[in-house]
Amino acid sequence: MSESTIRADPPLVTLINVFTVDPENQQRLVELWQRATDGVMRHLPGFISANVHRSLDGTKVVDYAQWESQEAFNQMLQNPFASPWVRELAELGTPAPVLCEVLSVHRAIGESRTP
Amino acid sequence: MSESTIRADPPLVTLINVFTVDPENQQRLVELWQRATDGVMRHLPGFISANVHRSLDGTKVVDYAQWESQEAFNQMLQNPFASPWVRELAELGTPAPVLCEVLSVHRAIGESRTP
Repeated sequence: MSESTIRADPPLVTLINVFTVDPENQQRLVELWQRATDGVMRHLPGFISANVHRSLDGTKVVDYAQWESQEAFNQMLQNPFASPWVRELAELGTPAPVLCEVLSVHRAIGESRTP
Repeated sequence: MSESTIRADPPLVTLINVFTVDPENQQRLVELWQRATDGVMRHLPGFISANVHRSLDGTKVVDYAQWESQEAFNQMLQNPFASPWVRELAELGTPAPVLCEVLSVHRAIGESRTP
């Protein structure tokens, strides 16, 4: 089964992008994002993963994406196949992208369950 | 080594909390968050993981946290040991918490590397 891993040590960049969206467009934005990821992003150099979330209140869509480097991420933004998707996504909602690094991972005491 | 896993199927809630912070306070906010998590949050029922990120531009701290249920998360907010930490964190920056569910995980074509 497909899964992603969060760790503090690998030299990658994490893009956390919180889109604000009208609740009536949340599902459309999710589907567009999934198509963009499967059709284009997954094939680009330096892409590691994208993990699509929806907010329980209907007003947000959040992508937690991992790239090998900030340079790879920036190259995606210039890529002629990817940039039209980025623009189309921004027409459905308001993006707030944050490029991050993971500092620490804290697990429950006892680790009684996964993940 | 400590790590967290993102999957589309487990019945958990994900709290993505983007704090906006003065760059001069970013490191203090990170350390406060780490102390709050290790000292209190990890011990609470329903806590699964917290994953602390800092933005490369210095203006954000992002927590990607996993809880067993929305009820467990809400109980944390009422917990007398946890709530002072939540207030103290909010004095160092402006939180924007989003409660989410994971819809899909997309990996790079070829899966040439982990994570």
